[in-house]
Order: sequence, then C-alpha cells, then structure tokens
Amino acid sequence: MLSSVTVLTPPLSAEIFFVALYLSTIKAKIMRSVNWDYNKQLVNMIDQRQLPSVFERVELTSYQEVATAIREMYVRGAPAIGAAAAYGIALAAQQSKTHDLLAFRQDMADAAKNLQATRPTAVNLFWALERIMAVVRNEAYDNIASIRTEVLAEAQRLADEDVEINQRLACNGAALVNDGDTILHHCNTGSLATVDWGTALGVIRMANQQGKNIHVLLDETRPRLQGARLSAWECEQYNIPYSIIVDNAAGHFMRTGQVNIVFVGSDRTAANGDVANKIGTYKLGVVARENGIPFFPVVPTSTVDLSLSTGDDIPIEERDGTEITELTLFGRPIAPKGAKVRNPAFDVTPHKYVTGIVTEHSVVYPPFKVNLRNVVTAEQAKISN
Amino acid sequence: MLSSVTVLTPPLSAEIFFVALYLSTIKAKIMRSVNWDYNKQLVNMIDQRQLPSVFERVELTSYQEVATAIREMYVRGAPAIGAAAAYGIALAAQQSKTHDLLAFRQDMADAAKNLQATRPTAVNLFWALERIMAVVRNEAYDNIASIRTEVLAEAQRLADEDVEINQRLACNGAALVNDGDTILHHCNTGSLATVDWGTALGVIRMANQQGKNIHVLLDETRPRLQGARLSAWECEQYNIPYSIIVDNAAGHFMRTGQVNIVFVGSDRTAANGDVANKIGTYKLGVVARENGIPFFPVVPTSTVDLSLSTGDDIPIEERDGTEITELTLFGRPIAPKGAKVRNPAFDVTPHKYVTGIVTEHSVVYPPFKVNLRNVVTAEQAKISN
Repeated sequence: MLSSVTVLTPPLSAEIFFVALYLSTIKAKIMRSVNWDYNKQLVNMIDQRQLPSVFERVELTSYQEVATAIREMYVRGAPAIGAAAAYGIALAAQQSKTHDLLAFRQDMADAAKNLQATRPTAVNLFWALERIMAVVRNEAYDNIASIRTEVLAEAQRLADEDVEINQRLACNGAALVNDGDTILHHCNTGSLATVDWGTALGVIRMANQQGKNIHVLLDETRPRLQGARLSAWECEQYNIPYSIIVDNAAGHFMRTGQVNIVFVGSDRTAANGDVANKIGTYKLGVVARENGIPFFPVVPTSTVDLSLSTGDDIPIEERDGTEITELTLFGRPIAPKGAKVRNPAFDVTPHKYVTGIVTEHSVVYPPFKVNLRNVVTAEQAKISN
Repeated sequence: MLSSVTVLTPPLSAEIFFVALYLSTIKAKIMRSVNWDYNKQLVNMIDQRQLPSVFERVELTSYQEVATAIREMYVRGAPAIGAAAAYGIALAAQQSKTHDLLAFRQDMADAAKNLQATRPTAVNLFWALERIMAVVRNEAYDNIASIRTEVLAEAQRLADEDVEINQRLACNGAALVNDGDTILHHCNTGSLATVDWGTALGVIRMANQQGKNIHVLLDETRPRLQGARLSAWECEQYNIPYSIIVDNAAGHFMRTGQVNIVFVGSDRTAANGDVANKIGTYKLGVVARENGIPFFPVVPTSTVDLSLSTGDDIPIEERDGTEITELTLFGRPIAPKGAKVRNPAFDVTPHKYVTGIVTEHSVVYPPFKVNLRNVVTAEQAKISN
C-alpha cells in the first residue's frame, strides 16, 4: 500500500516551537503538492484529506496507487490531478516488464485508461493524459528506454509549466497589492490546488514574499470549507498573517473599510470576462463594487473559454446535499434528518463587477471582450511556437 | 432535576410515518417555546439544544430550574428568555412558604436577582423581570395569595402579548407574499426565538397557512447554523416547503431569478431604518437590491431604537472564534489548531437596501426617518393607554 511519513502540524500559538520546526520542515512542507522523487524514482504527494490536522506526504510506486490517490482525493485541484496522472504514466513505464514495443505501448494505454476513469469530469486529467500519450505514441521514439525517459521528461515539463504560469500570475497580481493592504480571499486557490503557488493565493504569497505588510481575510467557504481547512494551513506554512471568517462576515468587513482588495480564482472564464467560480464569489463581487473595492479574479489563460460568449452559457453543477449536511456541531447533526437541500457548487460573477483579470500575461482591464481575447491568443501562440 | 418527555423527530422521507405521527404530535410540537402548564402548575419549554435531532419538552418546577434552563440555553431568543424569566417568578411565588408579606416580597426579589444573572446582556430579560417585580411591589396587592395570582397573570399577559404582536407582524408581512413566491430567509426568526410565531419566519408561516403556494430557501446561517438546525425544523413542523442552502448560494439564486422576496429579522433598528441583524444580512440586502428583489426586515416596534440616528451607532459584538472552528467534518477539525479567526456576530444593513420594514402596526416605507418614528410612537401610545 501507500507508504507515508506523518508530520504533526505544530500549534501556531507556540511561536518558538514553530520557528524551530519551520527551519527543519520548510523544505519538506513547501514542496509541490505532487512531484517526482528522482532519488527513489517514485511519485510523492501531500495527502490533502488529512489537512489541516496532519501533514503527511505519501510515496506512490505504481500507477494503480496514483489512480487510488486521485479517486480518493489525496490530491485535488485540476492542475495537480493532471500532473499526478502524467507522473502515473511515468510509473507505468517503469512497471511494464515487456521488451516488445507494441506491448509496451499497450501497457501505457491500459494505464491511461485506468487513470482517466478516476475522476470522470476532470478536463485537466484528460488533457494531461493525452499530452503524455502523444509521447508514448510518437514513432520518433523507437525503443522502450527512450519512451521511458521521454514520458517522465514530458510529465516533469507539464508540472514545471504549471508552476511557471502560476509564478507569472503571482507576480502580475502582487503588483496590485499595496503595503498595509488587507486582502479578502475565497476558497482554496493555493499550492494545494495546483502543482505549486496556485492562483489567487499565489498572488498573496508573492506579495508577502516581496516583503509587503499584508493581512488576509480567508472566507471559510462553505460547503466544503476549503478556506478554513486548506488556505489557512497554507498561510501558516508561508507565514502569511491571516484570519478565518465565515462567508457571511465578508460583507461587514468590506462595508466598514477593512478590506482593500479582493482576489479570487476562476474555474472557467467566458470571452466577455464573466467568471464562474466557487459558490459565493458572485456575492463578493457585488459587495466589493458597492463599496468601491477592487475585485480581481486570478485566471490562467488556459481556463478562459473564448467559445463561451457570456457566463450564462456556463452550466452550474448542483452537487449532493449531504455535502452541506454532513457537518457536525458538538457531535450532533446540523440539520433535520432527511432535510431538503439545494447545493449549487459554482456561481457566475458578471464582468461588470470585475475590476480586472490577472493572467500570466498581464492584468487585463475592460473592455474584456477585446482585451481578454488578445491576451489569450498571444499566450496560445506562445505555446504553439 | 428537569423532567422531560422525548419525541424523536421522524425521518421526513418516511412520508406516511410522518403524516401518522403528525396528527398525534402536532399539538404538542406547535406549542409555545415556553409556556405555563395550568394543570401541573409548572413551566414547560422546548429544550432547543437538542434540535433538530431530538424534540424534547422539559418541565420546570422551580425558579432555579428556570435559571439553569436560561443559562444553559435550553431556551434562546430575547422574547422567549423574557417570558421564561417572568414565569420563573411565578414559580418562585409558589415556592415561597413564608406567611409574611415583606419576607415574601424579599423571596421574589432574590429569585429575580438569580434569574437576572443568567444572561448578563439580555435586555428583554431585565425588562420582563422589572415588569413582574412591579406587580410584586404593587401595594394594591396586600396579601400573598393575590400577589401569587397577579404575578402569574402578568407573566401570562407578557407571553400572550409577544404572541399577539408576532401574529400581527405575520399578517402584515404575509400580505406582501404572492402565490408561487420563493422566499429567501436568514437565521432563525421563528417560534423558537420568541414565545410563538416569531418575526420573519412567522410571516412565512402565515403565508403558508393562508394557503399560498410558497417555497423557502433557508440560509444555513454560519457560524451557529440556526437556519439549518432550527428554521428547517420549524418548516417541517408547519409543513412549509423549504430547502436549506449554504449562505454562499443565496446570491446565485437571486441573480438567476429564483427568489421573489427576502424576509429577515432585526436585532436592533435605528431611527433612519438601518438594520442590525445576524451577520450576513448586509450581503443579502445589497444583492437583493442589485437584482431588484424586495428586501423586508420584520421588526417589532419594541426593537426600534429611536435614540440611534443611524446604524453606525450600533456596536458590533465580536464573539469567540471557537464558535467558527468547533465544527467537525467527518469527525475532523475544520481549521488548523490555533487558527486565527475573526467573528463579528452582527452586521448593519443601511436603509438604502431596505424596501420596507414590516412592523406589527403596518409595513413602513421610506422615508423611514419620518414614517418609522410615527409608527413606533403610535404603538408606544397604545401600550401606555
């Protein structure tokens, strides 16, 4: 099974203990959510299910273990899942013992099929596997050893590119942050959701790393509480001053002048700048504009869908109601047994509430319909060159 | 100790079971949150701590038991606490065995002091006790038997008046509801928060009772989840069609045309119509106006404070952060150990977002500064007559 090393996260009130431990564990902790261990020739990832109580990295030695880890949500966030699957094919290339090139390629195809079945709606998963399988099928590589090498190299490039794009997002966004700012943030958009750095939380991490004196208000982000569980944990790792708030409180802090700027992620952005993101983002956009507070989605151009003219074309997934009711308070259920629930997972924030969109190319301002297309086209041209 | 009768709330999916049980328990369940049992000569109240899993009424035979029940939050909501304390003095009048009028009055004063110490910030508690103690001190009652009778009568009047005001609120508000409406509601503002009926949820109950075909979206209302725990339970008791939503989802439903009207409570309303209410109310007000959806606080005139010219004069209580982090998800804590939290309990919704204020007198429309004062003054004149 999956082997693991457990590191209990230190209580933050014990500052001295934390600083001491910080130096010894910083490297291990601020490693990528998923990466390739070149010494041991295996996949290493954070088991996110146990955060924030327990920090544990697991070592995966077969593509089947990677499939299990994706299915059971050790790893989450589209880019991280994509990278994990790509590394999974690199493991499959090690596992295959055949000396026949055709049979080897078939083993890779079987592994890809297996990995693809883990999270049926994850677009990044399909995209990453297709990119790796193109290497497997490439007839320029006419022996098993070279395919093994190239598959791993491509998986590593895929992961590195995610990190590089996120760092460019972080730099572009951090330029919008002033010394002394209080930043409002929704959900988890950090290292844990990507290979490293993330989007909106990457901007915050970069501003902090640049020495700007900032404070972050973290929406806890019901229903799945990624803000309280994951973003708060990341802020502790990077020594970013933060406070968790209930989603209901964001309006109060904005109205009373306690928020300077809002950064959020985006699952999908339409050609006109409408943004589909974690449920609750829309309310933040409206209340930010009402109070004259800049509102910036942080958006890799790969998630801009120019084929969608507006956000109204984006279907809103409604998830199972137990996601809301499975919480317990003092060990007791929080809703009547059999309670009726509605649970839309995302909402659309129309572009009129969006001050600007931070991309890895630049910060895009209105009119989004023209300017967003220009930037996305420029980035796509860069990739195809 | 407190005696009790436990009734497990039925699983709502089992419709047939529910209907059968409904007929037998409806009277018991839709009794007041707190009342006087004239057969047994004791106080009877719902133990709200156990909702929504278990419905239990407890019988209290001494003012000390009432004090315990208030302190340990068997009963919550300012009007319900006030009524409970008033009935507590009626119990004390039974308990006192002295035949000396002076000593009897002293026993009552001791009981009042004891009851008053249970929830130090509950204004209704002081007001209710003062009202009962005025009867105890009234020299027109010159024997112990008559004071016993009058104290109970006054406590009963106090509870009845709360119910009557709430029913008038409910009628005035229900007139704003159209057949087929979907209503958005925040927190718990129902029977459980008052002696019976409540404010915003009372309006909804009345509209439903009038045969209007309505559906209610219940904000779960973090941090303490009174919407999911208590309002959903009340909707089940009154057969009101409802769905629980996370607070984050209210904006999505409003933007996509799925909400016709919003009703909320108010802890304190300023002379200009600014409303202080449970955290999250402000966001609802802003997003409702943005989408042209009528937004009505339901406000007993007793909670309008004409001495406050605006809502900015209302201090916002910040509560302990553990209120946010004490939840568990799959048995695990939802935030890092020692996580920093900010927890404002209320926010202020400026009157520009308020369509109208439902009072027991009438629905008050802008300009609130003039119209609210007229209505509050009229109601106060009625009381003093």
